[in-house]
Amino acid sequence: MVGGGPGAFIGAVHRMAAALDGSMELVAGAFSSDPDKSREQGATLGLSLERVYGSYQEMAEKESARVDGIDVVSIVTPNHMHFPVAKVFLEAGFHVVCDKPMTNTLEDAEALCRLVRKSDAVFALTHNYTGYPMVKEARHLVQQGRIGTVRKVVVEYPQGWLATPIERDGHKQADWRTDPRRAGAGALGDIGSHAENLARYITGLELEALCADVTTFVPGRRIDDDVSMLLHYRGGARGVLHASQVSVGEENNLNIRVHGSEGSLQWFQEHPNWLYCRALTGPEKVYKRGNDYLAPATQHASRLPSGHPEAFLEAFANIYVNASRTIAAKIAGEAPGPFDTDFPTVQDGARGVHFILTALQSGRARAWTDAAYTPPL
Amino acid sequence: MVGGGPGAFIGAVHRMAAALDGSMELVAGAFSSDPDKSREQGATLGLSLERVYGSYQEMAEKESARVDGIDVVSIVTPNHMHFPVAKVFLEAGFHVVCDKPMTNTLEDAEALCRLVRKSDAVFALTHNYTGYPMVKEARHLVQQGRIGTVRKVVVEYPQGWLATPIERDGHKQADWRTDPRRAGAGALGDIGSHAENLARYITGLELEALCADVTTFVPGRRIDDDVSMLLHYRGGARGVLHASQVSVGEENNLNIRVHGSEGSLQWFQEHPNWLYCRALTGPEKVYKRGNDYLAPATQHASRLPSGHPEAFLEAFANIYVNASRTIAAKIAGEAPGPFDTDFPTVQDGARGVHFILTALQSGRARAWTDAAYTPPL
Amino acid sequence: MVGGGPGAFIGAVHRMAAALDGSMELVAGAFSSDPDKSREQGATLGLSLERVYGSYQEMAEKESARVDGIDVVSIVTPNHMHFPVAKVFLEAGFHVVCDKPMTNTLEDAEALCRLVRKSDAVFALTHNYTGYPMVKEARHLVQQGRIGTVRKVVVEYPQGWLATPIERDGHKQADWRTDPRRAGAGALGDIGSHAENLARYITGLELEALCADVTTFVPGRRIDDDVSMLLHYRGGARGVLHASQVSVGEENNLNIRVHGSEGSLQWFQEHPNWLYCRALTGPEKVYKRGNDYLAPATQHASRLPSGHPEAFLEAFANIYVNASRTIAAKIAGEAPGPFDTDFPTVQDGARGVHFILTALQSGRARAWTDAAYTPPL
Amino acid sequence: MVGGGPGAFIGAVHRMAAALDGSMELVAGAFSSDPDKSREQGATLGLSLERVYGSYQEMAEKESARVDGIDVVSIVTPNHMHFPVAKVFLEAGFHVVCDKPMTNTLEDAEALCRLVRKSDAVFALTHNYTGYPMVKEARHLVQQGRIGTVRKVVVEYPQGWLATPIERDGHKQADWRTDPRRAGAGALGDIGSHAENLARYITGLELEALCADVTTFVPGRRIDDDVSMLLHYRGGARGVLHASQVSVGEENNLNIRVHGSEGSLQWFQEHPNWLYCRALTGPEKVYKRGNDYLAPATQHASRLPSGHPEAFLEAFANIYVNASRTIAAKIAGEAPGPFDTDFPTVQDGARGVHFILTALQSGRARAWTDAAYTPPL
Repeated sequence: MVGGGPGAFIGAVHRMAAALDGSMELVAGAFSSDPDKSREQGATLGLSLERVYGSYQEMAEKESARVDGIDVVSIVTPNHMHFPVAKVFLEAGFHVVCDKPMTNTLEDAEALCRLVRKSDAVFALTHNYTGYPMVKEARHLVQQGRIGTVRKVVVEYPQGWLATPIERDGHKQADWRTDPRRAGAGALGDIGSHAENLARYITGLELEALCADVTTFVPGRRIDDDVSMLLHYRGGARGVLHASQVSVGEENNLNIRVHGSEGSLQWFQEHPNWLYCRALTGPEKVYKRGNDYLAPATQHASRLPSGHPEAFLEAFANIYVNASRTIAAKIAGEAPGPFDTDFPTVQDGARGVHFILTALQSGRARAWTDAAYTPPL
Repeated sequence: MVGGGPGAFIGAVHRMAAALDGSMELVAGAFSSDPDKSREQGATLGLSLERVYGSYQEMAEKESARVDGIDVVSIVTPNHMHFPVAKVFLEAGFHVVCDKPMTNTLEDAEALCRLVRKSDAVFALTHNYTGYPMVKEARHLVQQGRIGTVRKVVVEYPQGWLATPIERDGHKQADWRTDPRRAGAGALGDIGSHAENLARYITGLELEALCADVTTFVPGRRIDDDVSMLLHYRGGARGVLHASQVSVGEENNLNIRVHGSEGSLQWFQEHPNWLYCRALTGPEKVYKRGNDYLAPATQHASRLPSGHPEAFLEAFANIYVNASRTIAAKIAGEAPGPFDTDFPTVQDGARGVHFILTALQSGRARAWTDAAYTPPL
Repeated sequence: MVGGGPGAFIGAVHRMAAALDGSMELVAGAFSSDPDKSREQGATLGLSLERVYGSYQEMAEKESARVDGIDVVSIVTPNHMHFPVAKVFLEAGFHVVCDKPMTNTLEDAEALCRLVRKSDAVFALTHNYTGYPMVKEARHLVQQGRIGTVRKVVVEYPQGWLATPIERDGHKQADWRTDPRRAGAGALGDIGSHAENLARYITGLELEALCADVTTFVPGRRIDDDVSMLLHYRGGARGVLHASQVSVGEENNLNIRVHGSEGSLQWFQEHPNWLYCRALTGPEKVYKRGNDYLAPATQHASRLPSGHPEAFLEAFANIYVNASRTIAAKIAGEAPGPFDTDFPTVQDGARGVHFILTALQSGRARAWTDAAYTPPL
Repeated sequence: MVGGGPGAFIGAVHRMAAALDGSMELVAGAFSSDPDKSREQGATLGLSLERVYGSYQEMAEKESARVDGIDVVSIVTPNHMHFPVAKVFLEAGFHVVCDKPMTNTLEDAEALCRLVRKSDAVFALTHNYTGYPMVKEARHLVQQGRIGTVRKVVVEYPQGWLATPIERDGHKQADWRTDPRRAGAGALGDIGSHAENLARYITGLELEALCADVTTFVPGRRIDDDVSMLLHYRGGARGVLHASQVSVGEENNLNIRVHGSEGSLQWFQEHPNWLYCRALTGPEKVYKRGNDYLAPATQHASRLPSGHPEAFLEAFANIYVNASRTIAAKIAGEAPGPFDTDFPTVQDGARGVHFILTALQSGRARAWTDAAYTPPL
């Protein structure tokens, strides 16, 4: 692991997600750019201190040299470090699990695409919300044509934790997430990109154009904290996407509605075990995780019986377990299983970066902007 | 009543709303442009047939001539007839309750403003959703500063009843509502205008600019059936408004969220007795209709104790009862009571027409468009 | 109307329910045992003062003597007056709408059964919650065998308004409802009887035995304010019924679940437009009022399109409109329409009284008690 | 681990719960009474095969003899084996985590109490639902007097998975859970005991008497599949508890309401991150996991920020992590931390067994039955 030092929320999430299924074992880390903090964290986590490093470069180098070196690195640093860290580890021959957004520039994103291709590494991006079983069910229903042709997508991601300028009070995560240099974009990059990815994962639709309204509500803040946009998808579907970090009282209310010519779907991240489905006739149906009537991909992504709720960590762990199975298959020279490659890739990362940059540009121009994009394979 | 012939949904609603409190008594009508149908409806309603008219012109003329003539006319025709009917009755000295959107052109809307002023009539527009008690509570909380400065408004009005081309199968209401000549606009005019009015009623904010995406999804339809837009309000607030008649399975799901610097509000028309309130700290609060802790205006607009749900008709009736009290006060030469003038006016109607036309223009231009407007007083 | 003086909640409800559809017109009343208050209320309601009476006996006598006398009386007094008032009006040849519980003794209840039979009057008891369309849908689904054989019923009616001794502070309704002489029973009579009636209406099951726990929680109160009981129905179904007036924060949360061998139903009075249905396989279904897929009886009981919520008053009005149609048919010497007799009868009233008295007895004995009962026809 | 062979749901849950925080490491097991299946499972789990045993007796003996032997055993067998396995391991000096209900007889339960005392072992019973953070918040609010004196508890545990006789179709879990010899009791033992434990954990109240209705609905089934009961608590509080495995469509809907003299609480296991709180005045409040306004014990039991839902596994893991900390403290000769002993004990197990047996007796007798009980310390 690179990043994830003391107090970093997302690092702990990655570790629990990996531990839940025993899909990856944590054996080495460069947890902080401060070597003392890195050692402190390594000790807390019970690692052998010889494998706790003061820098990611040192880690890549020394782990490469070990017979029992790591197979894969998890990158959980602030956004601006994703690229240099990923680059070093890919060049050193490791597989990569990387937090999102993948990079702060499209140039870096495309460079990673090429590096992944060249090194033949597995690269998994933790757009973790696509790991939820009922999100997979939604995708399945769309793919099966159960809602007909998709007409309209409404995807929202309201949060409220940045409604006041807590970055001035030493809130560590707020500090870097509101710093344009490190975060790249604010609400748009952190959570707007999740929303876009979720919509794409479920519908399979590609963006064609967008018109974004990018706002900073908190006085003195140097980055966007709210974004709303209209979307045009290839093929004629329309969309609305809005994300906010200043919606007071909202916690992590990612949710999506997909309306088709013959049906509609609705899902809420905060109540993730249920999926609402509506057809042209007949009563609304509530699909619930853990039941036999769900698609194989949905059931495969689930660990517990119905009514025993699964939540955020299990969804996150689904990214890890699939990435680890794909890596294991590659190491073993075998083909991965039918569901194992179901995780976001380096190309998804490039699409996300392009989306973020396009929305920023549209907001500045106050105009509809071309959003079509195909990442390098 | 003008309009509201056999099978017309909204006419029956107006009649029940008026009857609920006995606020107005139905004594005369021109229920259809077809005199036979008008008589049929008058008979069904138990009216004296001498006061059931074959045309609205006849009705205005004859009722003017009666000693016991009507005081007020309810106009519940298709949209394109609102203006000519209202004009005739205003000129004949009657008060008016009129359905929305008020007119199909801004010229007509402003002409009505001037007519109302000239005739000193009471003119009430049935943006009925502002009649809900918990909408009044939301307005009160905003006015009291309980959520601080409004930052972001999200208002939605999804329906699904026009997801297929039922206008081709003789569905009477679909027929005129999808006819550009009679309806003016589609989803935008019918329900988008309600959404805009609701947001304005609660927040008091005036539009400055908007960027609309106006779509017709059903092949062959001649009018919009889906609209999404970004909003800029005077003073810096932002908004998202979307309305649809092709959101399969949605029934009448008007809902609004208002996010301020210190709190947030959320309300759903389909579960109208509850209002969700969130502050910067502390748990979410669910305000419930019928309780002592609500504002006087909210309590005044309520008929039943808490837990005995009120719904659509009571809200609609609140427009009627307030209009009737204001009319009664005017007839008596008295000032209306403190809550009696709480109903949408002819100016609100003009604002709504301007909003609709601006959104259509923005959609055609695919561009942000100036939306500031002040109606004639 | 007898009862329903100034400030009486339920009298106003009856009046609005009757007005909503114009099913009955209020023309005469004895609104209070205090003649001044009766006149005050009559004046407020715009009645001709010659038809506002100082006592119910005077009203029955004088209305009998009028050519244009009333057809039907609504009895909305405290419980102990239901019997004497109903008796006088039935003997004078009037039809009756009466609030519940019907009487305070089984002797009186059975006497009313016989009086109704003898006078051939229409007698409607306002167990208003059976007037909800989705309650009718639930009954229909059970009758159609959609949930198989009913196994278990859970019916709840929690309220919180009597959680403190407000009867000591001059709260008018609390005053008589906690007075054993006037109310007969407390939570059990006021709302427990609604719960029992609702369960019987939906399932068609008759009680066989019950074991009740009848409690008074508020110190000094002279009547029960909370009741819980186990139920055995004829044929082997089981039930749980609990009702409370001291469940702090609960408003009027009547709700029911019916579990059968092949499916389950759930309905909440506070969100009355939706009915939840579950089968042995497949997703949960949410039936929503106003849709074509509902039973004819359900659609017939509905006034508004789907998504335009109906609520308490419409359900109450359904009792009135059906009673009035049945009365009109009887007056006209015709058979009532197929849905017109769908209202609670005097026999339902007797069953309710027997239920209340049995539960009180079981509570006193702390024992299972025979609850089978067949009222006189 | 003893039990938890191939396909056993609860064994996998215990393993994931232990892994989530790395609180215990699985190093040995007797996973099945069939040595081949035990080895198969051990291999699947990646254990060293010398520590995969063919019987629990062998495991206790051989692990005792190892220098690196286990510290603690998890017992996840069918109910009837809990006692003999726990006995052997306690006598061999190990700590125990044991599934519930603890034993099938009160004699065995009390014998375990004495054994635990004698051996000074840590014994944790996996009444896992008390591990939920918002259940801890509920307990905290009751302890702080926030709802005044508890008056009424309503606790429900409906499931539907045994609505048909799946035990005849080779459903492994249904097979033993409907076998009186192995399961002891049916719905009452499996889930009724969870409900009782949850109510006691939150309120701190001890039972005084109960009247149970114990039913077998599925023809041919040899054990109860539905139970409802009235409860009297010491001090005057009342309760209703019902649990069912034949409530079609219900999944795992454990939920509780606690009504006090000054407030009420409500919690649903299937939406576990929210707790509903109501007071005598003011709006309902929704407490949400992960927020600063919650009690320290609640925050301590939580791993993720608000809005990032936690669920069943995290709650289960809270039992494991607390037990493991208490064990670690005992091994180190230190006092456990302030929250570490928050897990169900062997005495809770004895109380649960007494509750189950008392309810069975009450059901047979169709009578109120004394339920007071104090387990041996």
